[in-house]
Parts: sequence; C-alpha cells; structure tokens
Amino acid sequence: MKVTVQGRTRHFRTVTYDAMANEVRLIEQRLLPHSFKIVATKTHTETARAISDMVVRGAGAIGATAAYGLAQGAANFHGNNMTRFKRHLQQVYQTLKAARPTAVDPVNAMYQVMRVMCNGQTVEEKQALAIAAAEEFANEDVAHCEAIGRYGARLIKDGMNVLTHCNAGWLAFVDVGSATAPMFEAQGLGRKFHVFCDETRPRCQGATLTAWELAQQHISHQVIADNAAGLLFDRGEIDLVVVGSDRTLGRTGEVANKIGTYTKAVLAQRHNVPFYVAIPLSTIDWNLKSGRDIPIEERSESEVLGAWGMLKNGQREYVRIANPTSKAFNPGFDVTPAELITGIITPKGIFAPEELWQKRDVLR
Amino acid sequence: MKVTVQGRTRHFRTVTYDAMANEVRLIEQRLLPHSFKIVATKTHTETARAISDMVVRGAGAIGATAAYGLAQGAANFHGNNMTRFKRHLQQVYQTLKAARPTAVDPVNAMYQVMRVMCNGQTVEEKQALAIAAAEEFANEDVAHCEAIGRYGARLIKDGMNVLTHCNAGWLAFVDVGSATAPMFEAQGLGRKFHVFCDETRPRCQGATLTAWELAQQHISHQVIADNAAGLLFDRGEIDLVVVGSDRTLGRTGEVANKIGTYTKAVLAQRHNVPFYVAIPLSTIDWNLKSGRDIPIEERSESEVLGAWGMLKNGQREYVRIANPTSKAFNPGFDVTPAELITGIITPKGIFAPEELWQKRDVLR
Repeated sequence: MKVTVQGRTRHFRTVTYDAMANEVRLIEQRLLPHSFKIVATKTHTETARAISDMVVRGAGAIGATAAYGLAQGAANFHGNNMTRFKRHLQQVYQTLKAARPTAVDPVNAMYQVMRVMCNGQTVEEKQALAIAAAEEFANEDVAHCEAIGRYGARLIKDGMNVLTHCNAGWLAFVDVGSATAPMFEAQGLGRKFHVFCDETRPRCQGATLTAWELAQQHISHQVIADNAAGLLFDRGEIDLVVVGSDRTLGRTGEVANKIGTYTKAVLAQRHNVPFYVAIPLSTIDWNLKSGRDIPIEERSESEVLGAWGMLKNGQREYVRIANPTSKAFNPGFDVTPAELITGIITPKGIFAPEELWQKRDVLR
Repeated sequence: MKVTVQGRTRHFRTVTYDAMANEVRLIEQRLLPHSFKIVATKTHTETARAISDMVVRGAGAIGATAAYGLAQGAANFHGNNMTRFKRHLQQVYQTLKAARPTAVDPVNAMYQVMRVMCNGQTVEEKQALAIAAAEEFANEDVAHCEAIGRYGARLIKDGMNVLTHCNAGWLAFVDVGSATAPMFEAQGLGRKFHVFCDETRPRCQGATLTAWELAQQHISHQVIADNAAGLLFDRGEIDLVVVGSDRTLGRTGEVANKIGTYTKAVLAQRHNVPFYVAIPLSTIDWNLKSGRDIPIEERSESEVLGAWGMLKNGQREYVRIANPTSKAFNPGFDVTPAELITGIITPKGIFAPEELWQKRDVLR
C-alpha cells in the first residue's frame, strides 16, 4: 500500500526479496505507528529472528517471510553437492519453522516452495526455483487479498460507518490485508465512508496498526475505546462490521479472532447490523468439529496490567497502569458462533458461515 | 475501609474533617494505586481546588467534601456580624459549587448543611451546626452504602465469579462504596468468591482504583481487558454482574454509567447472567422521561489515544499509544435499558428497574 514518508508517497509491501543482494526486506512493525523503517536480513537466521522478534507479524506476512527466508537460505549454499544442499535446506526449514512454532502459515508457505524446488535437477536450478516459488507465494497472497477487497467493497456504501477490531490489515499480509481490503478497494472506487477503529486492548493493534494504515490511505477514521462501540450501535451509528480471523472452522463457520470480536458480534446482532469476517483461505481449518476445541492462548499478564507507548521525548516505554499488587487474566482470542456472522468474505466470494463446508471444493 | 500502609492496617474514609485544626482530610486519589497519601486542606478554597483537581472524585465523596468544605468555610469566618457571615457563606458555596459544575452531589450536600444551619441564631451556633450537619451527611452516605452492602451480599454465594466495571467503590463515596459494598459485606461474612475487574478504558478506573480496593480487602480478583468478558461469559465463568450508576431514571429504570456498561449488560442477558446496579438514592433522577435525554459527555481524545501509568523508575507518565495522526471519539457514558437489568440494589432494598417509580415514596 501507499506510505508517505517525509512527504514522499511510495508503494510498499510488508515483505519483499532483493535477489541481487539476497536480502529479505521487511517493514520494522515494532516501530509503527511512531516511525516507518525498512530493515534487511542477509541470512535465513536473521530472517527467522525477525519473525520471532515480531519485526514482522500476521499470518500472510510471516508465511511470505518464511518462504523468502527458505529461498534466501538456499541461495546462501555454495557448491553443488546435492546431499549437503538437502541437509542445509532441512536446517534452514527447521530454523524458520521454530521462529513461530504455533503458526501454520510459515510451514505451509515453505512446503509450497519445497514442492516447486523438486522440479529442479541441480542445486543451482533448485535455488532459482525457490526464489520464483517464494515470489509466487507472495504474489498469490496479494491476489487473494485483492479479491477479498473486490467482493467486500460491495458492502461499503456511501455514507456508511464501518466498525473494525484489531489489525487484519495489509501489515498482517504481504499487501492489502483482509478486513481492510474492502475499505481500501471502496476508497479506490471513490466511496465516502468512516471507520471506527477499536483500540483493541491489551495490545492495541487497532489504535496503532489499523489506525496507521487508514491514516496512510487517507480514510476517514476515529479510534475508540473497546467500550465505546455499544453506545455507537445503540445510536445507530454503525452500519457494518468487518473483522479478520485467526482461524475459521470450515465445518461449522465458527470464527476465532482477537479477544473482543465475539462481543462486537453480539452487539451487532442485537442492533441488526451486518457482521462480516474477511479471511484468506489459509485460515480455514477443515478438521476441527467445534469452536470449543480451538485452543485459546493465555498471554502475559503484563499486557493487561500496562501498555506500551511513546513518551513526550519520543522514547517508547512500558507503563504499569494497574494496581501493583493485582494480577490479570489475558486470553488472546475468542470464538464467534456462525449464528452471529452475516457472511464470510473470501477470495472466492462471500458465503454464509454455514455454506463453507458445502463449498469446500472451491475453498480448499 | 481498611488500608495497609507500610505493614500497618488502619481504617480510612475517603474524606474526614478535623474540627480542632479545621482541616478537611482527603485520600490523594490521583496517586493511587501506586501510593497512598492523605492530604489536608486548610481553607474552603483549597478544598474546592481538591475537588476540581480530582484529588477526590466520585459522587458521594465530592458531596461530603463539599459539605465539609462549607462547614470549614463557615468556621473560618471571624466575628459575629450575621450579614457579613451570610455574604461570606454565599461566596464559600459558590466557590465549592464551581469546583465541579456538572455534578449534583456537592449542591445537594451543601443544601442539606445550609438547611440545618437555619436552626442557629448566632454565627457561632450556625458554625457549630454546619460541622454537625456535614458530619451527618458523611455518616448517612456511609450508612446508605452499608445498607446496599447488606442487601447486595445476599446475591453473592460461595464459589461465584462476579464481574464489575469501572470504580463504584469506597473511593467514590465516603466509605464502603456502591457496587463494591456487596463484595465487602460478603467477604466479611466469610464467603469465598472471585471478582473479574474490567480495566475500564480509557481512564482505567477498574485496573487502578477497583483493583486496589479489592487488593486492600484481600478479595480474590483479576484485572481483565474490557474485551475479555465476552469469552468468560461464553465459558460460563461469570455468575453475577454488579456495577454502579452515575444516573438512574426513576421513571424508566434506565441506567447511565461508565462507557462499556451497556455492552456488559447485553452479554449478561445473552448468557442468562443476572445484572445488578448498585446505587445510592442521590443518583436517581425523578424528572427525565427517557434515557435518550441523558447528555453523554464527550471527553478528551487524549484519554483514548494514550494512557497514564508508572515507569520503571516510579515516575507517573502519559504515553501516546495510538497512531500520531489519528483522532479519537471518547464518549464517557452509555445508557443501559431496564430490560437488561435484573435488579437495582438501593439502601432501601433490591427493586426491579420498573419498580422504582411505584416505590418513589420510599426512595425519594
């Protein structure tokens, strides 16, 4: 997407690969929204560290980063001994996989790259195929998000107020994003609308990342406390909700997403406001039979007991907000049942949540 | 309530009056939960400033502070010229009233003190009556909160998980509190229960003040992000919700309270969890005919765009969290309709919200 840095507007992806330098280039997301910087990694080990240190985060973005990291690791092998090359590649794969052990996207992305590499006979051929396959993976991620945008933009009419939660934006993908894709597309079509952006405590990805993305695209928006949406629904000031998803159950249409999503779906239903979930196909889980079986990560108490932000002097600091002798409970996700979801926006079209299973041949 | 400072446990009220020194003594609430300190004001002007600077906040607490401030101002008059005394008193009243112009409690409290002062013939008699009346006002506030506690404690059974929002605790009153009163009473009766304490963005009174109060009384509790209650309701881990109220409509049973309260009531209804509102009688508005007529204060954007907290070095600082070029919308309150409220806990008993009007002779 377009980013304006020091008055100059340029197009960026969250992750790209420079074949000449064999470098993976990443937006340093930990500095956002306060500063915008591109960092380069020279080895697959550095790329793995960028994933584990959260320089890059988000399903699509870490998938593409791992794909590039595998190609980068392959390219850094010298010689033509196939046995040694395969052993090296296995070690590169393990390093990148271990960078975010619970995520499924890096594994799937690297699997896709390795499948293409099979078509090469020599080390050199395999090295070239790896780069091409990683590029294809990244381009496919963008194409899928663009398709989500085209389908979803039909939902955003002139004058609407749209609510979103957390960050399912282009920073979480290679470009365009999932929940934000319909907004960017509608903006491109000249529609006038306003976005209410839940700050999304405890990590505040709405206030930081989504608000930054919307500001960069000049989309009218306001950050609200997670508590404020109820009043807006009650006043009839929200016309549409669009959120992303970390895992969508193909069998039931249940959606696991950032903590607080379920609450917004309950409010939307009470006020007859359509509630949509935008997802790339990779987040559909075709195996689990019930949302109750989705493991809910319990994260660090410190996220709830305080917050990260910028001091007046520009330094990024953590402040403890809560009573020092109190503890916290910090679940990372919740599950929204199909009955609260109006539709699921996919790269293949918009479906009712109950329709996913019957459309599984198209969506898998 | 009991507060433990440097290992010593003592009983405190949020506001007291020292007749010998003619000083109003206040818990410096702006330093909580990070440090506990009592400050003394020597004149009604200092007392008014303590109200306007938020040293003391909360309906009951600022009511009693204004009552004491009026008695303090009266006591600081020298001489026995009744005309001059009345002129002085009028000026004291205006100064204290102007300290928090939208609040109704200071005005009501001072009115009660002045009514009692009418019974005195001399300046000296009126000065003595003012002090007695202010003390009576404060004691009545405590007695009302204790009555709320006795009625409300019946709702809290062994093993229950209770959710509360914002701070309707003893720091907002002279002692005991409204929403917290049933918890303190149940704790005194030896019941074992756990409290989930919404952090209550943007000002985080739940994470700071309510968590501190619960910790001081050794009540088992955890702070949660406002987003997290939905998951807890869905898992059946909340058995009871108790909140306070800034204004309750006597004609309709609608409750205006801190932003986010409505959302919790909607969730409670969906999950068949009883939702109670604890209120002192002074917050009942017998005039307004609809919750739509309650003015909703829009507060500073900076509250949503950042947070106050403690740095590692112990300094209290504001950090900007949100994207620097984004704006915020920050409504302070929302309105919960009667249909979502199981009962209203008052000092006169627990009533269904629709019952308030028919019980108005008891409650007024």
